[in-house]
Amino acid sequence: MRDTSISNDRSVTTGPIEGSSKVYIDVAHSAGLAIPIRRVHLTNGDHHDLYDTSGPYTDTNVDIDVTAGLPKLRNHWTKSEPIDGAATQLSWARAGTITDEMHFCAAREGLSPELVRDEVAAGRAVIPANHRHPECEPMIIGKRFAVKVNANIGNSAVTSSISDEVDKMVWATRWGADTIMDLSTGKNIHETREWIMRNSPVPVGTVPIYQALEKCNGDPAALTWEIYRDTVIEQCEQGVDYMTVHAGVLLRYIPLTAKRVTGIVSRGGSIMAAWCLAHHRESFLYTHFHDLCRILREYDVTFSLGDGLRPGSIADANDAAQFAELRTLGELTKIAKSHGVQVMIEGPGHVPMHKIVENVRLEEELCEEAPFYTLGPLATDIAPAYDHITSAIGAAIIAQAGTAMLCYVTPKEHLGLPNRDDVKVGVITYKIAAHAADLAKQHPRAQERDDALSKARFEFRWRDQFALSLDPDTAREYHDETLPAEPAKTAHFCSMCGPKFCSMRISADVREYAERNGLTDVDAIEAVMAAKSAEFTDAGGRVYLPVVSRP
Amino acid sequence: MRDTSISNDRSVTTGPIEGSSKVYIDVAHSAGLAIPIRRVHLTNGDHHDLYDTSGPYTDTNVDIDVTAGLPKLRNHWTKSEPIDGAATQLSWARAGTITDEMHFCAAREGLSPELVRDEVAAGRAVIPANHRHPECEPMIIGKRFAVKVNANIGNSAVTSSISDEVDKMVWATRWGADTIMDLSTGKNIHETREWIMRNSPVPVGTVPIYQALEKCNGDPAALTWEIYRDTVIEQCEQGVDYMTVHAGVLLRYIPLTAKRVTGIVSRGGSIMAAWCLAHHRESFLYTHFHDLCRILREYDVTFSLGDGLRPGSIADANDAAQFAELRTLGELTKIAKSHGVQVMIEGPGHVPMHKIVENVRLEEELCEEAPFYTLGPLATDIAPAYDHITSAIGAAIIAQAGTAMLCYVTPKEHLGLPNRDDVKVGVITYKIAAHAADLAKQHPRAQERDDALSKARFEFRWRDQFALSLDPDTAREYHDETLPAEPAKTAHFCSMCGPKFCSMRISADVREYAERNGLTDVDAIEAVMAAKSAEFTDAGGRVYLPVVSRP
Repeated sequence: MRDTSISNDRSVTTGPIEGSSKVYIDVAHSAGLAIPIRRVHLTNGDHHDLYDTSGPYTDTNVDIDVTAGLPKLRNHWTKSEPIDGAATQLSWARAGTITDEMHFCAAREGLSPELVRDEVAAGRAVIPANHRHPECEPMIIGKRFAVKVNANIGNSAVTSSISDEVDKMVWATRWGADTIMDLSTGKNIHETREWIMRNSPVPVGTVPIYQALEKCNGDPAALTWEIYRDTVIEQCEQGVDYMTVHAGVLLRYIPLTAKRVTGIVSRGGSIMAAWCLAHHRESFLYTHFHDLCRILREYDVTFSLGDGLRPGSIADANDAAQFAELRTLGELTKIAKSHGVQVMIEGPGHVPMHKIVENVRLEEELCEEAPFYTLGPLATDIAPAYDHITSAIGAAIIAQAGTAMLCYVTPKEHLGLPNRDDVKVGVITYKIAAHAADLAKQHPRAQERDDALSKARFEFRWRDQFALSLDPDTAREYHDETLPAEPAKTAHFCSMCGPKFCSMRISADVREYAERNGLTDVDAIEAVMAAKSAEFTDAGGRVYLPVVSRP
Repeated sequence: MRDTSISNDRSVTTGPIEGSSKVYIDVAHSAGLAIPIRRVHLTNGDHHDLYDTSGPYTDTNVDIDVTAGLPKLRNHWTKSEPIDGAATQLSWARAGTITDEMHFCAAREGLSPELVRDEVAAGRAVIPANHRHPECEPMIIGKRFAVKVNANIGNSAVTSSISDEVDKMVWATRWGADTIMDLSTGKNIHETREWIMRNSPVPVGTVPIYQALEKCNGDPAALTWEIYRDTVIEQCEQGVDYMTVHAGVLLRYIPLTAKRVTGIVSRGGSIMAAWCLAHHRESFLYTHFHDLCRILREYDVTFSLGDGLRPGSIADANDAAQFAELRTLGELTKIAKSHGVQVMIEGPGHVPMHKIVENVRLEEELCEEAPFYTLGPLATDIAPAYDHITSAIGAAIIAQAGTAMLCYVTPKEHLGLPNRDDVKVGVITYKIAAHAADLAKQHPRAQERDDALSKARFEFRWRDQFALSLDPDTAREYHDETLPAEPAKTAHFCSMCGPKFCSMRISADVREYAERNGLTDVDAIEAVMAAKSAEFTDAGGRVYLPVVSRP
């Protein structure tokens, strides 16, 4: 990889991931559409193609200039006509139209365009793709598709800068983030977001209340519908693809949080709770929800209905406040869909393992199976500095149960702002959780990668093992630590057991033995082993040379 | 913490974990017995007591001298008479005797001594405590008790030294390893183990076939029952508390592995497979199993029946070879118990999430609910360098289903030998998986720690949050990175949102509001909110001052 330096230190990471190159594959029957692929080149001459989120940054044939932004890919695609005033993937899917975005998503997933259309039409999947974000390579979020991962970036009042944030976006998508959310709360929110939008190959989500609050100098009580509405329009115009809206935090639910161990932990939720209490009025997000739908519909921005009352500790999981809000999100889902607006539902948070599945079942029941998008959940509170791991456990389980997208958690959760390394660790950890769930759900393509990597491992193709992994750089570095020499990368042993003592090597001998003796299935094995046993006795006890006697 | 330097660079880590001190609590009704506790001292004057695996190393009142070894604690305990020739916890439990070891374990778990005895008597729990390891603080492994974690250490032909290994043991138990396994395969196996045994406050496990193979210069075909038997006796004499024995790898099962993606990945399993094929005879571990039982019974060494045919990849999970061996382990369990020998059963490996629970159910059915002791399992193969995480997902799920002990996996799995940092990350990651399972199983004490930490978090008691965590040092370091100043450790905001923008702070205001207005339950909330609404209208729209208007 190399760094492309831009004026004002605006540099981003470019170049292919080790062992791979970027290729494009034409979408069948869709002239002009081609999906990006990370092609892993194996040392045995084969290749293995992987879903690719990294955009043009990993393409050596593209000159990256962040001041100019990415090519406006979707401007060349077919544009469908609005249906009853709604120019959204939902309205087109319902009308039976398969858009270019749907074809593109289907090809990326290796599934049929009809399945994509059906799932979008039913509201069980969303394709967050604002008309004003033409740089975006569309992707689909829904339980019938590969589980997706979101990475949060964004500056705060305390630290961070614009160039840091753009690079974090590029870095996060390099390692597999399917969407990113810009959660900036400090200065220059608009400018930071503009840089991110024009350079992001993945959908971008925001929480507009953060910027609205900045306009009120941080005083929630000073918020108004008008300030909020104008902020939403400003962000829609910039091309934001989905927006978190905490419209389910109702006045009457707020006291339900009073006896919690950790009260309200969602920033958006607490802002709206503060506003409701300050004015003793119902949330303007709720009372103006129809107005919001009309705005989002214009751009095909997807709702991500926020869980402002999500639990912030194991003690508060699945409580009355959380599920009261979820019920309201169900009502709002129906309203949004009646306007033709796509919807997903945000979920917890902190939940012990035995209470996780209930969250998915209830969400599906109350919200018409709108895609569920959860933050972890953390399966325990006791490991700050390791909350990527506490939450990956919960994330894998909730994704197996049907959650469509996982919001990552970094090692810095609860402690500080993630740096570049933290972003990478967070993304890789969540790719693990998502992939584990894809395997468990038996997604048609999921196990192919495991099998390819395990085959490489068994055949001592170390470089292929690294290249097929989620993080080739770190895998190779760890191998180098114990056995740095170049020949070790083709050695038929590894550092754990040393050359004389290798179970994989013995296994290869077992295979040879079985093949030579026709031991191909259980019946054959029984028969041959019985014959061998007689032969063994006849021959005086030694019929087969030691399999590991070679040096 | 400080390092105690010993001649020949034999230094180990001593001193309490940040924010804690070592205390001892007398065991009720057991004169002279006291259990070790990690007492966390909170800034609000309270304290929180935690299960402590770290031995005397964290006790500032003990002078550590690794050349002399730890005090021989159990030499002062009551010794029970053998029953029908068996001086084992199993035989005593069956006879209705509650040993000092059982009292000690019960007090550590906060459960009744009768429950400990009942579970040991039924073979559903084991207390691995060789009579010749008096330095050991006994602990119990069984599904009714807290889930335990094992850390593997041990040198290999390629790297590592004795002093490294002893320090890894001290280091692993400092962070919570409940047992350690010495898996040395290189030179000085006997001497390395002697150092570890005499300094280990936790049970030590081994795989005797490794040392036996060293005696044969690494040639499996040269192994004999006699060499193996003498090795087992040598290790029993040294005080090893439990031993992995791959006696379920039968000749006829070996060809079942031939078509696997990754063949046989267990070192012990592959050694025995090589021996069986070389001689075309049944494994001497199986044919001499009764003899082995008689040896282990002498010392009360616990069997850990190894899964030599465990799957080494997602593709091979739950296959015929794996479950054939498990059935044989069930037979061997009955034999061992008939001799009065304690038994646990080792489990996989690499298993996708949807196939995990079947492993536990089958183990329980076939092995009379003997404690299950699993290696992960890894929920996907595609993340070398992150296999502590891929496996923590599987470990948490399998522990929730009833696995009693988890063998850790470090970030170096499949790539190299773990260093000191890797050992710590592996242990902490597995403490997370174990604790997540304890929460899900609703172990009586599990949630207390989460609640204490979350309460500290909500009240901005940063130092208490660190001290109550699994790794106070790293939690504090991460907080320092963003907000290094000392006042930040008592600040009522955190680095993520900055001072003006804190959801926790708003929540505290909500709580105050609810208390002031008598909003104590759902009915009261409904009633008061209705009244407030009327009052609000009467008062012209403003009845409550903004909750976050303070600076």
